[in-house]
Amino acid sequence: MTKLFTFLFLLIGIISTQAQTLQSPNKNLTMTFSLTPNGTPVYELKYKNKPVIKSSKLGIETIDVPSFTEGFSQKGITTATFDETWQPVWGEQKNIQNNYNELVVSIEQKAVANRYINIRFRLFDDGLGFRYEFPEQSNLNYFTIKEEKTQFALAGNHKAFWLPGDFDTQEYNTVTSKLSEVRGKMKEATTPNASQHPFSATGLQTPLMMKSDDGLYINIHEAALVDYSCLSLELDDKNMILNAFLTPDAIGNKGYMQAPTQTPWRTIVVSDDARKILASKMILNLNEPTKYEDVSWIKPVKYIGVWWELITGKSSWAYNDMTSVKLGELDYSKTKASPKHAANTAHVKEYIDFASKHGFDAVLVEGWNEGWEDWFGKSKDYVFDFVTPYPDFNVKELHEYAASKNVKMMMHHETSGSVRNYERHMDKAYQFMVDNGYNSVKSGYVGDIIPRGEFHYGQWMNNHYLYAVTKAAEYKIMVNAHEAVRPTGLSRTYPNLIGNESARGTEYESFGGNNADHTTILPFTRLMGGPMDYTPGIFQTQINAYNPDNNSFVHTTLAKQLALYVTMYSPLQMAADLPETYNKHLDAFQFIKDVAIDWDETFILEAEPGDFITIARKAKGKNEWFIGGITDENKRTATVDFSFLPKGKTFEAIIYADGKDADYITNPQSYQIKKMKVTSKTKLKQPMATSGGFAISVK
Amino acid sequence: MTKLFTFLFLLIGIISTQAQTLQSPNKNLTMTFSLTPNGTPVYELKYKNKPVIKSSKLGIETIDVPSFTEGFSQKGITTATFDETWQPVWGEQKNIQNNYNELVVSIEQKAVANRYINIRFRLFDDGLGFRYEFPEQSNLNYFTIKEEKTQFALAGNHKAFWLPGDFDTQEYNTVTSKLSEVRGKMKEATTPNASQHPFSATGLQTPLMMKSDDGLYINIHEAALVDYSCLSLELDDKNMILNAFLTPDAIGNKGYMQAPTQTPWRTIVVSDDARKILASKMILNLNEPTKYEDVSWIKPVKYIGVWWELITGKSSWAYNDMTSVKLGELDYSKTKASPKHAANTAHVKEYIDFASKHGFDAVLVEGWNEGWEDWFGKSKDYVFDFVTPYPDFNVKELHEYAASKNVKMMMHHETSGSVRNYERHMDKAYQFMVDNGYNSVKSGYVGDIIPRGEFHYGQWMNNHYLYAVTKAAEYKIMVNAHEAVRPTGLSRTYPNLIGNESARGTEYESFGGNNADHTTILPFTRLMGGPMDYTPGIFQTQINAYNPDNNSFVHTTLAKQLALYVTMYSPLQMAADLPETYNKHLDAFQFIKDVAIDWDETFILEAEPGDFITIARKAKGKNEWFIGGITDENKRTATVDFSFLPKGKTFEAIIYADGKDADYITNPQSYQIKKMKVTSKTKLKQPMATSGGFAISVK
Repeated sequence: MTKLFTFLFLLIGIISTQAQTLQSPNKNLTMTFSLTPNGTPVYELKYKNKPVIKSSKLGIETIDVPSFTEGFSQKGITTATFDETWQPVWGEQKNIQNNYNELVVSIEQKAVANRYINIRFRLFDDGLGFRYEFPEQSNLNYFTIKEEKTQFALAGNHKAFWLPGDFDTQEYNTVTSKLSEVRGKMKEATTPNASQHPFSATGLQTPLMMKSDDGLYINIHEAALVDYSCLSLELDDKNMILNAFLTPDAIGNKGYMQAPTQTPWRTIVVSDDARKILASKMILNLNEPTKYEDVSWIKPVKYIGVWWELITGKSSWAYNDMTSVKLGELDYSKTKASPKHAANTAHVKEYIDFASKHGFDAVLVEGWNEGWEDWFGKSKDYVFDFVTPYPDFNVKELHEYAASKNVKMMMHHETSGSVRNYERHMDKAYQFMVDNGYNSVKSGYVGDIIPRGEFHYGQWMNNHYLYAVTKAAEYKIMVNAHEAVRPTGLSRTYPNLIGNESARGTEYESFGGNNADHTTILPFTRLMGGPMDYTPGIFQTQINAYNPDNNSFVHTTLAKQLALYVTMYSPLQMAADLPETYNKHLDAFQFIKDVAIDWDETFILEAEPGDFITIARKAKGKNEWFIGGITDENKRTATVDFSFLPKGKTFEAIIYADGKDADYITNPQSYQIKKMKVTSKTKLKQPMATSGGFAISVK
Repeated sequence: MTKLFTFLFLLIGIISTQAQTLQSPNKNLTMTFSLTPNGTPVYELKYKNKPVIKSSKLGIETIDVPSFTEGFSQKGITTATFDETWQPVWGEQKNIQNNYNELVVSIEQKAVANRYINIRFRLFDDGLGFRYEFPEQSNLNYFTIKEEKTQFALAGNHKAFWLPGDFDTQEYNTVTSKLSEVRGKMKEATTPNASQHPFSATGLQTPLMMKSDDGLYINIHEAALVDYSCLSLELDDKNMILNAFLTPDAIGNKGYMQAPTQTPWRTIVVSDDARKILASKMILNLNEPTKYEDVSWIKPVKYIGVWWELITGKSSWAYNDMTSVKLGELDYSKTKASPKHAANTAHVKEYIDFASKHGFDAVLVEGWNEGWEDWFGKSKDYVFDFVTPYPDFNVKELHEYAASKNVKMMMHHETSGSVRNYERHMDKAYQFMVDNGYNSVKSGYVGDIIPRGEFHYGQWMNNHYLYAVTKAAEYKIMVNAHEAVRPTGLSRTYPNLIGNESARGTEYESFGGNNADHTTILPFTRLMGGPMDYTPGIFQTQINAYNPDNNSFVHTTLAKQLALYVTMYSPLQMAADLPETYNKHLDAFQFIKDVAIDWDETFILEAEPGDFITIARKAKGKNEWFIGGITDENKRTATVDFSFLPKGKTFEAIIYADGKDADYITNPQSYQIKKMKVTSKTKLKQPMATSGGFAISVK
């Protein structure tokens, strides 16, 4: 009998430490959770039985309470299934399906009485999300995080599309290399930036896009980054393991937590089809539905602006040429206005006229407010007040003029990283917007953060970005935050967050240029977490046409710039070039006027990260479709399969393509516009020049 | 001829590097400024020809521009004289004379083109003030301070009354010792505190009070601490030199400056008569006059409060016994109220009744608002919202009840050091006060500062304290800031800053006790920069009468507690004990009811730091005088010379004195009350018990 009981006990023991398995709805993905003999939680992920993530540790290392890292035993599990379709306020699709199988494991440490945590796994057809949860308990309350110990043990030396890990900037050019080459390429990749803080010779940012030798696409990122530090990764390039690396605060701690609480979701999107990576809605699905009751004030925006002429150096943000100003003390009206100051009433009216004539919703103006003379690089605390215009910018007059032309003014809040200053002025600044007809703001965080010692992506700043968004909602204001932390799907919960830059955008074309393959990568990396205010539409690609001292050039053809309105999804789209240039190419400009910015459906037709992307989308509530195709530095021929169109009808397509001899370096402005009839049976072969593309509107 | 020219050139050379001398109006003080051969600015100070400060360096060491330390030559000088009498909004005197001789030296560094600085010296009869000024120039703009290099080279191993230098607390017991003993006593002196950051084995705080062997009293502090880091001192105990030691920020920098700007004044008050130290108005005189147009809403306040019963542990701030709460998520009305929660409507009404009956202006209530259960020691960011009362505290009802009794409610804003949180709520919190009849607030900064890494006395926090005061003025609110930086005379400019604690106050009598000589020192140290909300008036000196678990006792007699209302000047005076205790001693309590809190004149009759103080004051606008005398652990007999009274009249004096057998340890509550007639010729000998005192009201 003793042997029997021993056996039974062994069996129960085995069962209680048995691995827990979770499958995706279509069973292609399998996640397995278990505890090692010393009680460390581990997980692994397989796709169609191929390892995606090999056995990887989980845990959180703490400072002031026992760490959540080992000595665990299983307390219990729960499973669930979820399948729901929901409608975003704006997006690539009218309907989004949220379908997953869920496993929650509760684990406790015998050495720490009255304390357990949960790890929640959700397995979708397109990938895995998991997070740590800390339920309220007598022995689990406040704790400080030293480091999160989540691992992603990779199954090979994958090809990766990566940015140097950094606590302050996301604006590096993407490097495409094997993971084994990261260390050797890090130094060269870490180009100068107004605010930067690389943290490791093998540090990487998320979203991280990878492709295995056998054609598996793997994307790692996070979802629902709320009240936590931003996730970066440190590559153990000996073992090909990615270790979580959180952003520290000024004193080196990585998170301050109060139970009940949870971490963001760590996300792994997986497919053997690159198009499915782009089509994935997993990160949005992991975010909470919005609690906003009235969302009628949130609308996608197509805009132009007094901006590119500043970025190129043609004009200036600053009103005068002083090197040091004190707000509230300097009487600007007594200083000499620089002829280069672009944000003046007359000039802005020209933009308003252009916007009105061509059906744009809004005009952004940068350099409208006192303080631009010495805003940059001085660690200046009281740098802007966000409400006092320069003497030559008449807020009221421009509000009325724009309103008379059915155009809205778009506000600009450059904080210069001086965040206490921004928060001190925020209510007044938002009220000023409401009083003067502004309903959207582009905010910026250029330069090192004040309070000094904090980083752009730490818990402190992530709290601030969300504060700015939720407070904006009280004023029915939409927010487009540049230099903020990269998005993690929070726009599902806070749909007035209509955009971020938080990556290397079009402005860098004027600061030396972006790589030719830049925008064939961004949708696989930066855009996985949310839309980007990429501000394309540059027709005059040679910057010295605007500013003889600036010899940068946009590394694309003109036609590719049109395609970006489709391939770079955003509810906020700028026609970034100067009206005078658009006036020279109104035929091509027509596409920008026509292209929708909100969608019923999206069809990822072709995609390979770093090489090419072809996307078709159906405009929301209209029988109109828009297609965009882009390529990297190589010529290519895209295939547009129009089977997404309704059957049995004929449509008129206008194709904006590279000219036969177009080349992004030598002949970027060569384009051709053709019309043709298309049906659902049409398969169009569309050639693209080097760093070229095409755009098609179908009605 | 050559010899003659050489001589003349030498002479001019000597003249141009000749020392500059400044004398005080009565010529007792002489300050000499010069440049050393290597161009380092130095100064020295003599009193009646005795050295006070020996040759001491001046300068500012910077990080990002050439330091302002050496290689200087004189560019020019200007001198001036100033003599004006001004009236403070509230104070120890109705009229304050501001009389000084001024020397401004402009010095430039040949190695740094187009850049000079000024050092401005003002020499008063009571001491020296000097500051650095950075005029606006093409080559002087933004700079970051590494350390201020101001020295105070002392003429001897003085007796000093000192606190361990610290970036976060001023609440240590004062140590009385020779400067040579500082190092040996530092460890023991650095007792535990909720937030502390000692910085050196010989670090000292200001105000620093010293007495030389030959009876010279010297006090070092600063005036007008605006947009700068707080001054501490590091003693070079080998050479008896005090070196300036500023408070760093989170990344170790000590100041961010933008020209035109200036440092605060460094102040050295000097006299061979200790009474003149206490009488000095130099620090107020160095501050800017107020720009407030309407000051009618600023009035001294005599108050009681739901406070001492919390401090002693008799009652609790917290509403319930939870260990972790989330504001806005926890429904307090569903939790069980602790019977110890003092801030409930019925109990507060008792205080209002008592205040009304006895003519007090206001009732402070601590523990009225959600969040006290876990406010302390958790580094909690969103710790209070400053507007949501506990379920048992009816704001409206108490407002109306107090108003009906001609009493004001005094607000309490404990920030818990979470400063971004406080600023986020500040406008709403101040508006809430206005809406509910509060016109004064006691604020607190208990615990380490959030943003983490910043210190209580750094430039960042000093900016915040002033922001809270200036914003309060917009709402016509008076501020009493505890745990804020020690004052530096700013209440001249911002008269709604009616108090600070910023030192070891009466609460510490309940946390182990203050030294018997504590209040014989504080006017020479802490009070030099501004009034202190010391909250005296404890009649029940044995704390275990309120809380059997607390065996602390107040280290004074009852009569000394009365004297403190005169010897510890403050426009804000609390009768801190419980009404039930005052009701047992209404005869003694009468003095607290009678004593004025605003003055026409002040007469420092007797004073020796650490030993005794006797002060008489004339009430503002009334023919009433109040006298207070205190002693340390030694019995003493004070001499009250009534020659400050108008001649030829007889007045009635009520003397509240220690009983014959009073002793602060064994018999503290023994007191006697006598009446006598006094004239300007009366010289009263008044005995005081150990840590005893006396109070006299004259009408």
